[in-house]
Amino acid sequence: MEKNKVIRVIQYGMGSIGSKIVRELLKRNRFELVGAIDIAPGIVGRDVSEVAGLPQPLNLLVESEPAKVLSSAKADVVVHTTGSHLNRIFSQIEEVVRSGLNIVSTSEELVYPFRRHPELSAQLNQLAIDKGVTVLGTGVNPGFVMDTMALVLSSVCLEVDKVKVERVINAATRRFPFQKKIGAGLSPEEFRSEVAQGRIGHVGLAESLYLTAHGLGWTIEEIKEEIAPILAETPLKTEYLEVSSGMVAGMDQLAKGMSDGKEVLTLRFRAFIGAPKPHDTIEIQGNPPLKVTIDGGVAGDVATVAMVVNSIPRILSAEPGLKTMADLPLPHAALS
Amino acid sequence: MEKNKVIRVIQYGMGSIGSKIVRELLKRNRFELVGAIDIAPGIVGRDVSEVAGLPQPLNLLVESEPAKVLSSAKADVVVHTTGSHLNRIFSQIEEVVRSGLNIVSTSEELVYPFRRHPELSAQLNQLAIDKGVTVLGTGVNPGFVMDTMALVLSSVCLEVDKVKVERVINAATRRFPFQKKIGAGLSPEEFRSEVAQGRIGHVGLAESLYLTAHGLGWTIEEIKEEIAPILAETPLKTEYLEVSSGMVAGMDQLAKGMSDGKEVLTLRFRAFIGAPKPHDTIEIQGNPPLKVTIDGGVAGDVATVAMVVNSIPRILSAEPGLKTMADLPLPHAALS
Repeated sequence: MEKNKVIRVIQYGMGSIGSKIVRELLKRNRFELVGAIDIAPGIVGRDVSEVAGLPQPLNLLVESEPAKVLSSAKADVVVHTTGSHLNRIFSQIEEVVRSGLNIVSTSEELVYPFRRHPELSAQLNQLAIDKGVTVLGTGVNPGFVMDTMALVLSSVCLEVDKVKVERVINAATRRFPFQKKIGAGLSPEEFRSEVAQGRIGHVGLAESLYLTAHGLGWTIEEIKEEIAPILAETPLKTEYLEVSSGMVAGMDQLAKGMSDGKEVLTLRFRAFIGAPKPHDTIEIQGNPPLKVTIDGGVAGDVATVAMVVNSIPRILSAEPGLKTMADLPLPHAALS
Repeated sequence: MEKNKVIRVIQYGMGSIGSKIVRELLKRNRFELVGAIDIAPGIVGRDVSEVAGLPQPLNLLVESEPAKVLSSAKADVVVHTTGSHLNRIFSQIEEVVRSGLNIVSTSEELVYPFRRHPELSAQLNQLAIDKGVTVLGTGVNPGFVMDTMALVLSSVCLEVDKVKVERVINAATRRFPFQKKIGAGLSPEEFRSEVAQGRIGHVGLAESLYLTAHGLGWTIEEIKEEIAPILAETPLKTEYLEVSSGMVAGMDQLAKGMSDGKEVLTLRFRAFIGAPKPHDTIEIQGNPPLKVTIDGGVAGDVATVAMVVNSIPRILSAEPGLKTMADLPLPHAALS
């Protein structure tokens, strides 16, 4: 596409992240927001601007019928922020691709869907190729800290024996849904029960692991995942909840990737209320060995919004298909 | 190209880095070394293996006539490691491209040649497009620490006001040519005289700066560069030289990139004998702000060799032309 052409965007999902993305798109001359989709009753039919918390009306309404928006808005790309799990959002993405539109999604599973959902991935890839559009799942985690960063660092390595990434987040600084997702405030028994029901835990460690392995040419035979509670040693309080001593302050989630019987990838995600010295550390055991620390860690929502917005120009010039961060050109800020 | 096809490589330049690259290529099933070029009298006509310090003969001789090797070796790609300055090596690169071969070079100026050498760059780009081959200059610095890393980090930023990179190297751990290049052992007067004659200093700060600005969409109007000596406070000794107190232990080189009258890029390279806590730090002032530290810094020669070898498969599948690290797919290790 031409370098200075305005990029026409449809925002699909007007929740917290979707609204933040809308505000960023509207700030930039490079983008034009031409449609917005959501099905939530309190949102449908309202002005996008109002939903996104902006003062000036846009005279663009949030629509609940994707087909209508996708066919009439003459967009170049859809930004999709409705859910994590591919089987629940597949029909949404499929409809976008079938409409001949490129799509960048914050779906964690879409960051590397080929292992968890081989058939859906193959189907989506073929459809995207047929339609000449690019599909990308991205974000900060998965999408950056535990995969893209590790891959980029490996470019100066002759040998990589093992990749270890640790992300430590002070959950007190995050939104309520995040605090809930890590089990903050629960008793240890409740925590274990919620974990067993799949209601606690970060979605994406396995995807980061598969994406990194894919880039490095490793075959992962097995992933071992564990989630343990981190208990409050003293009473804790956030904007949204209180945690008594001995109750759950957050979680310690670990994913290990096994290749040829060896643990070659170790991703550890610790998020709890009051975590001291939050950071991201990416370590490569190899030649040369590398250890990189991001002071404070990469901030959650702002960075996710940035990665999505910055990915838009890149997917427009990419080859068609279901792509990953490892296949696309070097990611970087698209500031204009 | 097919994914598992063996890649046929010609090594152009059999010095220290070239020899290390040869040793790495020979370790990997993915590559076949099919030619070697150098003009140094002590090297021409000898077995590549012997020159590269390997025990088993390869029955492949170092040739001094590029035309002969380029036309007969049926190679896919040339790895070029003969010099830093584009005007001195242009005819070598041009001849490779004219032969229809892809080329990855350690020439520092080739990492971003469009500003220093606009005409040569345009000419080379057109020739590469005509011949359907890709030309890339890469390495660790320039090519990774002060540019690619900064760009990749910017992908999670909504705004970038300024990029600052600091690289601190303990020159005692590096080869003699490096120690010489930073002025170690000279008197302060000799240092200044050598700087004035362009014989001291790192080539590549300006290239890193232009490459980062290019990725971020910034126009750099002016670069301000300074080189100052770092004096030894106590007597120092390396494998190759001694430095008395008050003499030069190394250098402090600074490049500032100005855009719209503001300093938007600051690259500082300090390399001296006995530098404590060597490291690379990449800092983005923006939203979110980011500060990343690579403990110990990215090792010089090993990492350069790795970046070159890892770049080979990527340039073979890239679009034709004179490309930069910012245009190509995500760099990562090519381990097989």
